[in-house]
Amino acid sequence: MAERISPTSAAGEVPAGLIDAFWDYERALAQEDIAALDAAFADGPATLRADAAGLLVGHDAIATFRSARGGIGPRAIVGLHVRMSDPRHAVVVSENEPAVGGAGVVTQAWALGGDGVWRIEAAQVAASPAALQRAVWRIVGDPLVVGAPDGPLAGETVAVKDLFAVQGFAVGGGVPAFLAEAAAAIEHAAAVRALLASGAAVTGIARTDEFAYSIAGQNSHYGTPPNPRNPGHLPGGSSSGPASAVALGQASIGLATDTGGSIRIPSSYQGLWGLRTTHGAVDHAGVLPLAPSFDTVGWLTRDGDTLARVVAALLPESGGTSPAAAGFTVAPALLALADDDVRTAFQDLLDRLVAAGAIPAPTAIELPDLGVCFGAFRTVQAAEAWDSHGSWVTAHPGALGEAVAGRFAYAAGIDSSAETAARMVAADLRARIDAALGSRVLLLPTAPTTAPSVLATPEQIDDVRVRTITTTSIAGLTGRPAVSAPLLRIGREPVGFCLVGPRGTDLGIVELAAALAAAAAP
Amino acid sequence: MAERISPTSAAGEVPAGLIDAFWDYERALAQEDIAALDAAFADGPATLRADAAGLLVGHDAIATFRSARGGIGPRAIVGLHVRMSDPRHAVVVSENEPAVGGAGVVTQAWALGGDGVWRIEAAQVAASPAALQRAVWRIVGDPLVVGAPDGPLAGETVAVKDLFAVQGFAVGGGVPAFLAEAAAAIEHAAAVRALLASGAAVTGIARTDEFAYSIAGQNSHYGTPPNPRNPGHLPGGSSSGPASAVALGQASIGLATDTGGSIRIPSSYQGLWGLRTTHGAVDHAGVLPLAPSFDTVGWLTRDGDTLARVVAALLPESGGTSPAAAGFTVAPALLALADDDVRTAFQDLLDRLVAAGAIPAPTAIELPDLGVCFGAFRTVQAAEAWDSHGSWVTAHPGALGEAVAGRFAYAAGIDSSAETAARMVAADLRARIDAALGSRVLLLPTAPTTAPSVLATPEQIDDVRVRTITTTSIAGLTGRPAVSAPLLRIGREPVGFCLVGPRGTDLGIVELAAALAAAAAP
Repeated sequence: MAERISPTSAAGEVPAGLIDAFWDYERALAQEDIAALDAAFADGPATLRADAAGLLVGHDAIATFRSARGGIGPRAIVGLHVRMSDPRHAVVVSENEPAVGGAGVVTQAWALGGDGVWRIEAAQVAASPAALQRAVWRIVGDPLVVGAPDGPLAGETVAVKDLFAVQGFAVGGGVPAFLAEAAAAIEHAAAVRALLASGAAVTGIARTDEFAYSIAGQNSHYGTPPNPRNPGHLPGGSSSGPASAVALGQASIGLATDTGGSIRIPSSYQGLWGLRTTHGAVDHAGVLPLAPSFDTVGWLTRDGDTLARVVAALLPESGGTSPAAAGFTVAPALLALADDDVRTAFQDLLDRLVAAGAIPAPTAIELPDLGVCFGAFRTVQAAEAWDSHGSWVTAHPGALGEAVAGRFAYAAGIDSSAETAARMVAADLRARIDAALGSRVLLLPTAPTTAPSVLATPEQIDDVRVRTITTTSIAGLTGRPAVSAPLLRIGREPVGFCLVGPRGTDLGIVELAAALAAAAAP
Repeated sequence: MAERISPTSAAGEVPAGLIDAFWDYERALAQEDIAALDAAFADGPATLRADAAGLLVGHDAIATFRSARGGIGPRAIVGLHVRMSDPRHAVVVSENEPAVGGAGVVTQAWALGGDGVWRIEAAQVAASPAALQRAVWRIVGDPLVVGAPDGPLAGETVAVKDLFAVQGFAVGGGVPAFLAEAAAAIEHAAAVRALLASGAAVTGIARTDEFAYSIAGQNSHYGTPPNPRNPGHLPGGSSSGPASAVALGQASIGLATDTGGSIRIPSSYQGLWGLRTTHGAVDHAGVLPLAPSFDTVGWLTRDGDTLARVVAALLPESGGTSPAAAGFTVAPALLALADDDVRTAFQDLLDRLVAAGAIPAPTAIELPDLGVCFGAFRTVQAAEAWDSHGSWVTAHPGALGEAVAGRFAYAAGIDSSAETAARMVAADLRARIDAALGSRVLLLPTAPTTAPSVLATPEQIDDVRVRTITTTSIAGLTGRPAVSAPLLRIGREPVGFCLVGPRGTDLGIVELAAALAAAAAP
């Protein structure tokens, strides 16, 4: 229990009831007295609570956060500053020293209710940062690996997804038991080497969903990285760590992989630019595989210019003629998967781009049955995921969290005849989608929804997952490159605007997306 | 310039003048209009501004901070919440998205002055954390190196000063040009290996003052680590990074070196426990030397129990008979070096310990002339520092910051006759101090002052440095172990209480200090 110090500075007559209320709140914090903590904040939708992770608005949101947080450890109040606005309103700023080290500051706006009780109407809380945000990073350095002294990417900093070999470090794949057995890499993955040779430095190794087999951005071992562009919502995965690192400004480039959306989905959820490259365009040497028929390497950035510079440096042959020349298409069946507000935002942007002359009116095309697309993609992905990791998973019961363990259990059940049939369907779908798209650029919302809440139930996440993987499977099945640009907003929540181009047009579609972003700017 | 959005939520009638004042402040921030920023905060000593680094009290302190900070980059305001307390007082909470990534929240308490101008009376500011605090760390991991699966230090986390070899990483010594040329270590330093074998994990490699040749805790290349127990003041050095990491709760053990106070001084300034070990007691294999006649390895912790467990694990033979048996001494000439308030606090604690029966009344002893002690210590240290690094420093003009470069310039000027003379004086002093102390425990303030302000002038720091090195030189000249325990306070500012014991009593004096801390507890 904190020693009760007197206010070290005060302006105005300080009511004893206010000071008592302050210390009661500290007691409730120390004792994790949830009822008292909830009662200390003013009821209703106007109450505010902020910390470095973002702002909560309304008593309900604050109470939900608190019930999920767990207690804070003991701390001493070492400074107490009271400023009376009027006899019924005060600002109280307290300084604390947690027993676990560090220092904290809390600003509270208190109001005296008609019932004679002082309550907090707004608060902001600060604490010393952790050595590293372990939900985002496994290792960080200043830098971890220096890049070539010059090059087109000099000054850029890279968050490397924990699937890529970084010389001297093991690949962890988002699974602690796998990391514990992994040997240090003898050399960098080819994609790491290419960035270093272009002048970029590696800031660190960032988290991935377990074996990259998820698009949620949750890792049962290391936690859920924050989504600074949509606080309280999932970051998207599996490239969750690189995406959050870039969104947080902790790196300028995320080096990642995309099998079923693992670059595009976190880009969409976090308002980033992200490129899934043409299948096979980037050397996979030194990358932990998931499903090689669909695995691709790509990058995430905060702006289109940086992404274009990365692609120009690493896939220069993918530029040339603009893929816009052959025209644009939309697939109504894909749009039907999206939430109404996402579809509306997408259509509004499309209309604006056409009205502005940025693009010709896209033609509507018919795609093969999307349920079949999803099924074929999922089955082949699962069969290959089992090829990649099944023997390890079998040998390490309990090593995976429930969601990903369940996915591997499904994968284990796919027999060779089911796999063969799915591969035939997938090959047929590829031919039919290719025929439908031709050389045109397919436009679609990157994801059918904004980021789900961190409080979403597994059922809600699964519904989103099916619609999302269906949406992303078009590029997956065809091996086409897909860029996600943060051009849609539902209120303040970002959704990506996606361009799927012909194979080999990676730089072309990134530059095209950047041009559309410029045309769409208000 | 930020787009001007309407309040996204408000309670009460919001005066237009308040909203204008809010946006004027954002404009002033974007334009780094210092005069407007200063004017936006209420004048006088009651105004408050807090962020994760701590609280500033009073308009002057806030203005000083602001003039030193430099500008913030462009940012968009994406949420604006206004709560009127009364017609003249409001709480405004705004959410921002910096162009460089991340997200911020600002809570401001505004008041309408008698002159009709709205001004900020209190503010708290939050921003997304950096990937790592580069003033504190060079590299961090979760963990960087795992320890043995069990052992007496299992669960502990270590911040390794950047003088110790960590396998696979170069030793940087706090000097970027030195780091750039250094090869990765083939094996861990002996002191790192010992901690790992005892079950502790290495969290990362933490900053040091350049070549450890300073006690200030400033590094001209990487910045000044924070002092969470005395915000706005220097962290102390040269083990500044490990000390701040431990004080911040980012590691539980700092592995460091102490030549002229480099463990004791940051311990004193930051309210930590720190042990300078008996000279030669810990294997120096894999440690970058400074002045081998005085260089020692030691540890910093937040509490005495952890320090005692570290010493018991790593220097078990240094326990046994309590060094208290032979009694205690104080040296009035050393106390005379201390600031009045430090001397008073030290004497008060001594009186309390004696009154409580924790120790017998210490005897006063006479030490050799302290000016001679300082001179001999400084000369031998400088001559050996030149032996260690002179050729590298000569070959790399401009590689060091001004303060440490100046110290090496002094070292370069010591000729062999001066060095020989100083070594003879030092040997004589050692014998005379040993004779004065005998087997008794010398008690003294670890440092003669609290931590200097980060705004202290070089002249102020130099005055403190001379008195401080004089104080610490007694253990240095005699090779005796010295523990600093955070038992003194000047207001809220910590100062260490130091015990210097006979050689080989490292564990004994740590346990003794822990017993005195318990006796001194209120």
